[in-house]
Amino acid sequence: MLKDRLTNVRNKCPLIQNITNYVTVNDCANILLACGGSPVMADDINEVEDFAKVCDGLNINIGTMGIAVPSMFAAGKKHNEYGHPVVLDPVGAGASQLRTDVCNKLLQEVKFTAIRGNISEIKTLVNGVGKTQGVDASVEDTVTMDNLDNAVAFAKAFAKKTGAVIAITGAIDIVADSKKAYCIFNGDPFMSKVTGTGCQLSALVAAYVTANPDEPLEATAAAVCAMGLCGEIAKKRMTSMDGNVSYRGYIIDAMCNLTAEQLEEGAKYEIR
Amino acid sequence: MLKDRLTNVRNKCPLIQNITNYVTVNDCANILLACGGSPVMADDINEVEDFAKVCDGLNINIGTMGIAVPSMFAAGKKHNEYGHPVVLDPVGAGASQLRTDVCNKLLQEVKFTAIRGNISEIKTLVNGVGKTQGVDASVEDTVTMDNLDNAVAFAKAFAKKTGAVIAITGAIDIVADSKKAYCIFNGDPFMSKVTGTGCQLSALVAAYVTANPDEPLEATAAAVCAMGLCGEIAKKRMTSMDGNVSYRGYIIDAMCNLTAEQLEEGAKYEIR
Amino acid sequence: MLKDRLTNVRNKCPLIQNITNYVTVNDCANILLACGGSPVMADDINEVEDFAKVCDGLNINIGTMGIAVPSMFAAGKKHNEYGHPVVLDPVGAGASQLRTDVCNKLLQEVKFTAIRGNISEIKTLVNGVGKTQGVDASVEDTVTMDNLDNAVAFAKAFAKKTGAVIAITGAIDIVADSKKAYCIFNGDPFMSKVTGTGCQLSALVAAYVTANPDEPLEATAAAVCAMGLCGEIAKKRMTSMDGNVSYRGYIIDAMCNLTAEQLEEGAKYEIR
Repeated sequence: MLKDRLTNVRNKCPLIQNITNYVTVNDCANILLACGGSPVMADDINEVEDFAKVCDGLNINIGTMGIAVPSMFAAGKKHNEYGHPVVLDPVGAGASQLRTDVCNKLLQEVKFTAIRGNISEIKTLVNGVGKTQGVDASVEDTVTMDNLDNAVAFAKAFAKKTGAVIAITGAIDIVADSKKAYCIFNGDPFMSKVTGTGCQLSALVAAYVTANPDEPLEATAAAVCAMGLCGEIAKKRMTSMDGNVSYRGYIIDAMCNLTAEQLEEGAKYEIR
Repeated sequence: MLKDRLTNVRNKCPLIQNITNYVTVNDCANILLACGGSPVMADDINEVEDFAKVCDGLNINIGTMGIAVPSMFAAGKKHNEYGHPVVLDPVGAGASQLRTDVCNKLLQEVKFTAIRGNISEIKTLVNGVGKTQGVDASVEDTVTMDNLDNAVAFAKAFAKKTGAVIAITGAIDIVADSKKAYCIFNGDPFMSKVTGTGCQLSALVAAYVTANPDEPLEATAAAVCAMGLCGEIAKKRMTSMDGNVSYRGYIIDAMCNLTAEQLEEGAKYEIR
Repeated sequence: MLKDRLTNVRNKCPLIQNITNYVTVNDCANILLACGGSPVMADDINEVEDFAKVCDGLNINIGTMGIAVPSMFAAGKKHNEYGHPVVLDPVGAGASQLRTDVCNKLLQEVKFTAIRGNISEIKTLVNGVGKTQGVDASVEDTVTMDNLDNAVAFAKAFAKKTGAVIAITGAIDIVADSKKAYCIFNGDPFMSKVTGTGCQLSALVAAYVTANPDEPLEATAAAVCAMGLCGEIAKKRMTSMDGNVSYRGYIIDAMCNLTAEQLEEGAKYEIR
């Protein structure tokens, strides 16, 4: 039951270490607080291992690189040692060689519980090269009802290869392990007008898989449904004067108020 | 027509690379999305050139320096090679020797399409030294109706020297090339109580000049009018309990909803 | 009178340099503007001393470390030379060895006007080691009415040792110099659901002690009361759809509108 995944986050208050970009870091921290988790943003190479000890899970987001890259590896390995869940958000993989290379190396050296990206980013991880447009998916890669079965098979194959739950998000979201996939229809197109809704979702996934260690697939699906559902709730709240920044706040507000029952009833998905 | 400048941004959705400060980066990303553009914030020296290839224009903002300084030069030169528009926001030039030096060197090595700053920052670029107070203009430098002709001549001269459109923003804004200046009277004094409205405007200018490559002067003027107009629209929306943070959101919301007709009708300027 | 502390901030508009984390930096800048001060976020080691000259006070926040650490020392010493107030926010001291070490060294090399942290962070500074949970206080450390006298004595002793005003914030706040302590009961538990309310408060303290150089104790107490009071005002403004992000904005909005009379009337404290 998806609702149990949410309830566990609220009850356990997982402490999530984030090595993430400076663009959306504040929103990531606030959505972790909103969902019932607690954020730590420590990314200095000289302390990531200390924080790995006190935290319950890790979210690696490559949105901005710089000096945080070595910390991604050090933190990832340390959380692996402790058996903590680790999430990867390969922001912009395929758009620069550096990002593609860092992701390839992370996949070799760190074991991930879940990997969340858009279709172009995930294709880059699979193929080792990609054509991501900046930080958005290429139009030609878009997942539609027509190519959904192919995309599901693709996600399951990558899940099998990596051992991670694969979350490919877009107009239709796919959350898959090697055997089972949730095809999720929550969300609103206007979410793409807010910077960092993907980053926020990855932080949320980290909280959900950490609070539900035995149910990584369902936990990831619950997080993806929750984010989309909050996008829908927030959209209904908008007035004619509201734009993308008010919408950003309304989404996180909705996450703050989201109940287990709302999630269970509002989640729109099918299993393939 | 200013409105055509806005329409081009919405239709072309220019992808703007930003090498900018960590203080206001999220607002810069959101205003780019709001205006119809798309943001990339990649600033790692090992990938700025890759992103220059996929992006359509560049916004360099020196609000915080650190390891991003070499990336400013590398990205600027690469976008120049590709013939992309490049915008400079010389935040705090004149307040530290480092900022003044970096700006002087950027002006030597990178060709800018537009440069936007307050009067003290622009005076620093012209004179090589300055007396900027932190990141705000010195009171003694303020542009008023009394010294407007002098300020216009000053802006035109600097435009002639650099080949860039010069945007000097404050209570009265001046946007000039070597021959023609827009004196713009949009805006609201309360905008100075929101951190980063200047940074946001520079990102907006980058989107506008990129989507209007043959009209850099009018495009910059349109962006400056749009920002001021959104400040006015947002001010009208404020309730007695609202303060600077709600105002910040309302400004970007207004940009999200701004129509070509609103801009054409609401722009207040004269040509000198 | 607390209200004179606020009035001085509004009248003097202190320019505060901040060397702070990239998570909450935008909110820190906006709350400084809201309270009547002016923010500078320059943290490059090559310019911190230049900014020390033009700024009136300094706020050091160790929320994220990285390349800013040497700048904390350089800026702290330079502001000390100029006789400017310097505030320390020891975020997460006790949670990593690096943070504990940096704080210990800062206490040796820089003279602080005020130090603001949660009880676990301050205990770490006193004892040289600690058990801070991420960036939150340990439950076992919590200040309650039952152990308040002990906590006050502890704060006064540390104030005596350091010469700084000590602000220990939590459900009950203590602001003490070596002889006198304000026990402050303003605030709302929901403030802990917003990332960075502590960071914001430290920035606010910097503005208050800088605008009130002869009254550091009362100025710090006024800032702490003001923050808590704004948390209360903001809470009353919330609707059923609002969550932590709207609340974040409402708090800073309230600071923007806070009057000297509101502060004087709304402050809830006793002297011990």
